This record gives sequence, structure tokens and C-alpha cells, in this order.
Amino acid sequence: MLTFVGLGLYDEHSITVEGRQAVAEADRVFAESYSSHLAGATVADLERYHDVEVESRDRAGIERNPEPVLAAAASGQAVLLVGGDPMVSTTHVDLRLRAHERSVDTRVVHGTSAATAAASLTGLQNYRFGPATTLPFPDAHGGDEVPGSVRRVLGENRTRGLHTLVYLDIKAAEDRYMTADHAADLLLSAWGDDGSEAPDRSPGEEGPLAVAVCRAGSDDPVVDAGSLAALADRSFGEPLHLLVVPGELHEMERAALDAFGEASFET
Amino acid sequence: MLTFVGLGLYDEHSITVEGRQAVAEADRVFAESYSSHLAGATVADLERYHDVEVESRDRAGIERNPEPVLAAAASGQAVLLVGGDPMVSTTHVDLRLRAHERSVDTRVVHGTSAATAAASLTGLQNYRFGPATTLPFPDAHGGDEVPGSVRRVLGENRTRGLHTLVYLDIKAAEDRYMTADHAADLLLSAWGDDGSEAPDRSPGEEGPLAVAVCRAGSDDPVVDAGSLAALADRSFGEPLHLLVVPGELHEMERAALDAFGEASFET
Repeated sequence: MLTFVGLGLYDEHSITVEGRQAVAEADRVFAESYSSHLAGATVADLERYHDVEVESRDRAGIERNPEPVLAAAASGQAVLLVGGDPMVSTTHVDLRLRAHERSVDTRVVHGTSAATAAASLTGLQNYRFGPATTLPFPDAHGGDEVPGSVRRVLGENRTRGLHTLVYLDIKAAEDRYMTADHAADLLLSAWGDDGSEAPDRSPGEEGPLAVAVCRAGSDDPVVDAGSLAALADRSFGEPLHLLVVPGELHEMERAALDAFGEASFET
Repeated sequence: MLTFVGLGLYDEHSITVEGRQAVAEADRVFAESYSSHLAGATVADLERYHDVEVESRDRAGIERNPEPVLAAAASGQAVLLVGGDPMVSTTHVDLRLRAHERSVDTRVVHGTSAATAAASLTGLQNYRFGPATTLPFPDAHGGDEVPGSVRRVLGENRTRGLHTLVYLDIKAAEDRYMTADHAADLLLSAWGDDGSEAPDRSPGEEGPLAVAVCRAGSDDPVVDAGSLAALADRSFGEPLHLLVVPGELHEMERAALDAFGEASFET
């Protein structure tokens, strides 16, 4: 049996009780270290907390050489620890399909996820979010500062009045995490390039309202709302950071941003 | 301090370790019983598991008479237990704003949520979901069988090639939960009414491909893919059920539905 266990949002306490139990019952425990990352706990912290040995695997160790994990799952209980909710990355879907092809049973133990935490913490309504997108480091894709795909998702969502959750690039192996101020700066420089924002918005040089969500799942998450220009001038401390670009705001959403997002920007 | 603790997806073991700790440290523990519901655990189960008294509150007990909860939070540690990830319902945002107005600190402990579980279990990619919608019981809104708002969200998402998560109506007080087969039947009867589906799709009388996701977060979740007509003829057992209407399918998404969704429908 191969059990994908979501570690949730932030540290070793973000796992569910069910997930903890699955780890305790496992013969071997693997962790992947490339598609996701706990900002508040190391692999050593996880080992101490669960009192098990955790075998860390990089991308190549899962994608190109999945044999050890599959063999462990074929002969016993194997757990793969994944940040957030598992299977968000296609790599894990691929691994699950490989297990299925070998008639190895699979199971998913869910974890808390930035996708809903961004809504919970900001007070923006979950059902008013369009699809999310990921903003890469400019040096990671070698193209424009903000890829067309990111601009397109933002533009289409705003045309429909929908909010956009922007995941920020993670280079876990290099210990590099894009900050919300850097992301705001990148988006501001590209804003309006494709004319895709809704015609009733003329944000000017400040850019539209955005919301930085930092250290979701920790004891001291920060939610800060402001124009892209204002956010680009702030600093938000330790990772991980997310950025939300709201679409149309309902009355209660606006009230929540005022109360919890220190929104100083005229929305 | 008022701490909103997400109970997660299914039963008393779906809570995070951090959430469990917050319950253990609370002076009073409330649970709301109307916007969400654990299919696999009663309030008595929660009391036993956490070894605390849980005070159940219906909608009126939170919305019209929030005083007891706010007073408990002003004078000590109060926890409000909420299914899934907290704050998805506007009721909780409203309660959090009331606490803020009184200078009562608030905190959110996240929970696992259907929003990401639907993607995890089906293998459909999270970032390819448009906004979700909720399908109400026809007798609950007194209008068309499928409200225009639901048809519009489905149509707009499909035009963009996006997947749609359809939450199914819950009348917890009456112990009524819409089943995935009932939902498929309702959607099939309304399909094409507004001509909003993408022009390259002509699903015929079978309706488009849909995916039933049942008992997410439990030990035996069921994922079943088929045409709306096929799903309408099946039965999926105990609640809760969700329905996903996919947009365009990438190769790996198709493979995942074939492997894990028993998809018998030509996609």
C-alpha cells in the first residue's frame, strides 16, 4: 500500500490525526522535497515528531527512479509525505498511476492547503476565486518578467470579477522563496501589458489592490492588503508568501480586508 | 481569543494536530451545525475524542445570538469547531468581524477541505478548476430545477476549458444530503438549456462526463466517472457526495480518471 499523506500548511503540527496515524503504521516513510516544502519544519523535525526515519527524495528520486518507493509499497506499508494536500503536483499523480499499474493499492490522506487558507485568512469568498496561477522567478523561465500564462489567468479572472490566488516560486533546493513584495513588483511592472484587465478599472501607477498572505498555517500569519506599489515597498518576513489579486469585492469581503488585511488602499 | 478550528473532511480524525491542541487548551468549545457537517462523526463522537463538552449551535445560535460565543472569547479561550476549512461560510467571517469590533483576538486553524480533496482524489489538476458552485435541492429555492447561477458558472468554466466542483445541498437539520446520482439527474435535465457549453462539445443525450466524489476524507472514498446519464443511474452510498464536471482533460488527468474513476465513458 502506498499512502500519500498531506503534511498541510506550515510545520509538523499541520498534519491531521489520521495522517499521523498512517505514519505511525508505516514500514517506510519517504518525503519529497521539491514540489512543496514546510517552511516551519525540517525533515529532522518530522523525524523527531513522528519518531520514525524519514527518507528524503528529490525530484529525480521520485520521477526517474520511483522503484524504491514502489517496491516498499508492494511489500509493505509505504508513506510518501507531501506538503499541503497531496496530488496537487502531477508528479504524485504519475507515481500513483505507476503504483496502480503494478496493482499496488494507493490511498490519499488529505492535508490543509494554501488554496483554501488564502480564502479563510483574507475573508475573500472561496467560491469567488478563479483558477490559481504560479509566478516563477524571472531567471527560471528566461522569458518576460511575468509569463503570458500568468497574465492571461489574471486577466480572464478579473474580466469575470473573480479573485486570483498567485502561488510564488519555490526553489527549495537553493533555499529561494519568492517574497510577496518581489511578486507585487513583478506584477506591477507587467500590469496592463496585455490590456486584459476589466475595462472599468483604471488602477493607475499604483496597480490594483492585492493581498499578501504570509506564513499561512503558522501562529502568526500576516495578511496585508494594498496596491501592488504599496506591497512592493513592504517586507513580510519569513516564507512562505502568497499573493491574492481580488476581483470584484462584496461588502463583507471589503469589511474583512479592512479589518484583517490592514487595507489602506481605496478599493 | 476566538479560535476557528477546521474539523476537516470526514470524522474526528480529520482534524489537524494543531487543531486538537487548540481544543485541549480551550475554556469553552462550540460547534456549528448548519453550514457544514461531518458525515463520519457526531457531536458526541467529538466530545468523546477530545474529552471536552461541545456546545452545539444552530444558525440562529450564531447569527442572531452571537453573544454567548463572543462573551466566552472575550473572557477566555473559546473555540468554534467548523467542518472543512473555517471561514468558507460568510457566517463565520461575520462572527470574526464582530469579535474584531470588540477587540477580541481571533485565530484560524485550518482544516482539510473538499475544494482540494476533489482534485487530489480525481487526479484533476487543482489549477485547472474554475470557481465552484452549489446545487440546491429544487424545493429549497422554488425556481427552476437548476438555478441560472449554477448553469452560468458551469457554462463559463467550460468555455474556458476549466473543471467545476459542484457542492451538493445539505439540509443538516433534516438529515437530507443531495446524492451525486440526484445531482447528475438534475444537471442532465437542464443541460444545454442556456446554450452555454463550449461549441466543440455535443454531449448528446448522455450529457457530458462528470465525476462523483463520495466520502472524501474517509477510508473508502469513491470516485466514479461517467456521463451524467450513467451517474444518474448509479447509487453511491452514504454522504457526503460531490460532483465534478471536468472541462478539457490533459493526458494525465484522463489517465487518472481511467485508473481511479472507473471511467467507462468515451472522453
